[in-house]
Parts: sequence; structure tokens; C-alpha cells
Amino acid sequence: MIRRGFQVAARLGHHRRLLGAPRILPRLNPASAFGSSTDSMFSRFLPEKTELKDDALPNASWCLDMLCLYQEFLEKTKSSGWIKLPSFKSNGDHIGLNPPSGLAVSSDKGDCRIFTRCIQVEGQGFEYVIFFQPSKKKSVCLFQPGPYLEGPPGFTHSGSLAAMMDETFSKTAFLAGEGVFTLSFNIRFKNLIPMSSLVVMDIEVGKIEDQKLYMSCITHSRDQQTVYTNSSGVFLQLQLEEESPQ
Amino acid sequence: MIRRGFQVAARLGHHRRLLGAPRILPRLNPASAFGSSTDSMFSRFLPEKTELKDDALPNASWCLDMLCLYQEFLEKTKSSGWIKLPSFKSNGDHIGLNPPSGLAVSSDKGDCRIFTRCIQVEGQGFEYVIFFQPSKKKSVCLFQPGPYLEGPPGFTHSGSLAAMMDETFSKTAFLAGEGVFTLSFNIRFKNLIPMSSLVVMDIEVGKIEDQKLYMSCITHSRDQQTVYTNSSGVFLQLQLEEESPQ
Repeated sequence: MIRRGFQVAARLGHHRRLLGAPRILPRLNPASAFGSSTDSMFSRFLPEKTELKDDALPNASWCLDMLCLYQEFLEKTKSSGWIKLPSFKSNGDHIGLNPPSGLAVSSDKGDCRIFTRCIQVEGQGFEYVIFFQPSKKKSVCLFQPGPYLEGPPGFTHSGSLAAMMDETFSKTAFLAGEGVFTLSFNIRFKNLIPMSSLVVMDIEVGKIEDQKLYMSCITHSRDQQTVYTNSSGVFLQLQLEEESPQ
Repeated sequence: MIRRGFQVAARLGHHRRLLGAPRILPRLNPASAFGSSTDSMFSRFLPEKTELKDDALPNASWCLDMLCLYQEFLEKTKSSGWIKLPSFKSNGDHIGLNPPSGLAVSSDKGDCRIFTRCIQVEGQGFEYVIFFQPSKKKSVCLFQPGPYLEGPPGFTHSGSLAAMMDETFSKTAFLAGEGVFTLSFNIRFKNLIPMSSLVVMDIEVGKIEDQKLYMSCITHSRDQQTVYTNSSGVFLQLQLEEESPQ
């Protein structure tokens, strides 16, 4: 059996019923966008060679805790099956999709940026790197929120933590089970996060059922003594269908 | 009876129990920061005269739908009790609080920005304005997400919508009942939002109970034909205590 590509017309029909008005849904053509297999999709997401800039690399703004944990996980990529995810400017760069035609987008269509890379000044916005463990369907995100993510004075905005969590959920969902759209998430905040300190997000896929991925996330300090959030998220899956070889 | 100011020592004690480790909590001194009354707090938040730049004013990037609704609500400020909230660079500018001393913040402490004003290029990030109705404890946020808030190619990142919602929740909670910290929120996504289109957020305070504000939010298109999200949020309240006049 060969997985030949996304046969998603029916799935998108289901998706339309789930999400409502079809006029604003993307007219995806994943079969042509992703190539011809799951492996192709995976390798497109994680290219071995690319000219695209990877923003998930250490820079001078990273605190010592972040650098140390980054090195620890980098070691795990050599022996424990972990993968360091690159972070490109746009999700289109990752998954090979272009904006659907006919949709209202900015006049400067070429300058889209994935939200969590919207601030380009090192250390001022979202500094982060995600590591993924395919066999266990789990991820770790090392996140250092900068002073442009302010909420209460001196602390990180709850919304920026929600955004970072949603982004890590979405990358995990995509790689663990072709999850592509956020259906819901729920966050309980336990402690405030001092600006520019290190936050560790542990994300796991609990189950995949009825085209949905159910995930959980605990956000904590490096020493795990302070829990910042307990959260859950549900993503909609675009399933691949099996076909006989031609 | 006069409300003389925040008498929050006990409340912060309660807050510490709610939020956990006290070492990362802000050492607020709201009594000195806010002056001597609720009115003072309110007027500090909404100064009649200030040299601070208000980012919640129309600019060339606003779409026609956004401009029209902005004008409609501006009319309501003259007759229907609505208030247009200014939007300054930092929450410290709004509520008169400085970052707590001794906390880890960026080396460039002076350049903090409230997260939803982190992108300064007009039309590329968060374009928004919030109107508040004190007597009904409800708000409307007009939000135009730009191409730096990308999620799925051509569409807005779910995390940026969560951030905008959390910010509108937080301003509403603060003005409706001294709500200051997000305890939880829950978002169900119904439709994707095309980049740079207008989003309308309707937020209401349902009840205030046991030092918590319970709020709901529906996010929709201008014509209300497309619902984007259904959400709820809970904020922790710092209560004012009644005192006899001196």
C-alpha cells in the first residue's frame, strides 16, 4: 500500500461542516502542495538543506538556562530520537502552501510572518526552539519571552503565553498526526512569568480520535518548582487515505 | 462611606495562595500607585490630557469596515455611555505601576511594550480599538489582524486571536471590577479569519463572585454572519475595601 497523497475533498467537506461558512475556508490543494507521501510532507517540514533562515538557533539574547537546556536537547537528537524543529518565516515555508487565491490579504502579500516570529529584534519578542519526539508524540518548547511581550508591568502577557502554546501545539499536531487547525484550547494560569526568564513547555498528544488530536501542556520553570500553566488543546486532523499502488 | 484605596495586603496573601510561589509575584503597592480612590484609578487609566501616544486611533491601514464601525462607536460615546479606551505603549502607563524591583527583566528596561502593541509598522500587526460600556460591564473590540500575525498561510494565527481576546478581557476586567490577573480562558474556534479582515469581539462580564470576574466573548464578522470564536475567561479581582470617612 502506498499513501499517495491527501485525498481530502471529503475531509474538507467535514471540515466545512465543523467550521461553518465555506467562503472563508482555505481552498487547499495539499496533494500538489505536499508531494506524494507522508514522508514527503515530513521532509518538506524538516528539510536537510534549505536557504531559508532558521530562527530557532541560539543568539546573544538567550539566557544561560536556555542555552544549557538547548544543548541538553541537542544531545538528545543524536541518541534519543528527538528532532530539533527549524523555524522559518512563514508556515508556507514549512508546509509548502501558498495563501489561497481570492482571499483578502495585505497589500504586501510577500511580507507575511508566522505570528511567533513577528518581532525580529533579538531578545525583545519570542525567543524559542521546539524539540519533537515522533515515537512518543511529544514536544518540548524552550521559550524566553522578551519585553515586547509585556502584560502586567515586569511580567509576560498571558496572551503571549497562549500564542506560544498554540504554536507549539500546532507544530506538534501537524507532525504527530497531520493536525492542522486549532479547534479549541483551555489554559489555567498558576503563576506570573517574569520577563526574559526561561519557560519550558511540555506537550503530549494524549489520543487521536475521530479526526481530532487531543493534547496537554504543562508550562514550568527549568527546575520544575514553579508551574506557570496547565492547559489542553484539540486540533483537527486532515487524514491521509490509503490507495493501491498504480 | 469612602473607598480610600487598595487595602490589599490580605488580598495579595490570598493571591499568593492562588498563584503559588511568592518569589515571582509582583510586590504591588497599588495604594500609592493609584492614588486614593476608584475614581482616581479610573481617571488614571483614561486621562483626559496626556502626552502619551494613543495607538487606538485610525491610520491609513484600517479597512473601510473598521473605519465605519469606529465612527459608529465614536457616536455612541456622545450619547450612549460608551467610552473609547486609549492604548498606550505599556500597562504601566495605564495603571501607574512600574516593574517590581529585583525581578529579572530585559537589560533594556525602558523599552517594554504591551504585547498587543509589539509591532509598530501600521497595518502589519495588531490594529485595534476597544470601546467599554461601564454601566453594562461590556466591551467591543474592533480588531484587524495584519500579515505579521500569520497562522495557516493567508489566515490569522489562533494564538494572535487568543492574545487579542486576553487583552480585551483584561482591560474589561480591570475597568469593570478591578480584575488584574488572568486565571483561565477557554476558546473554541469556529472559522478561520482571513488576514487583514475586520474582527469584532463582543465581551461581557457575566458575574463577579468570590474575587473573580467571569466573562464571555463572541468573535464575529461585522455582519455577524460568521462566528469565529466562542470563549470564556476568568480574572482575579483585587478588591477595594470600604472605610469610614476620616
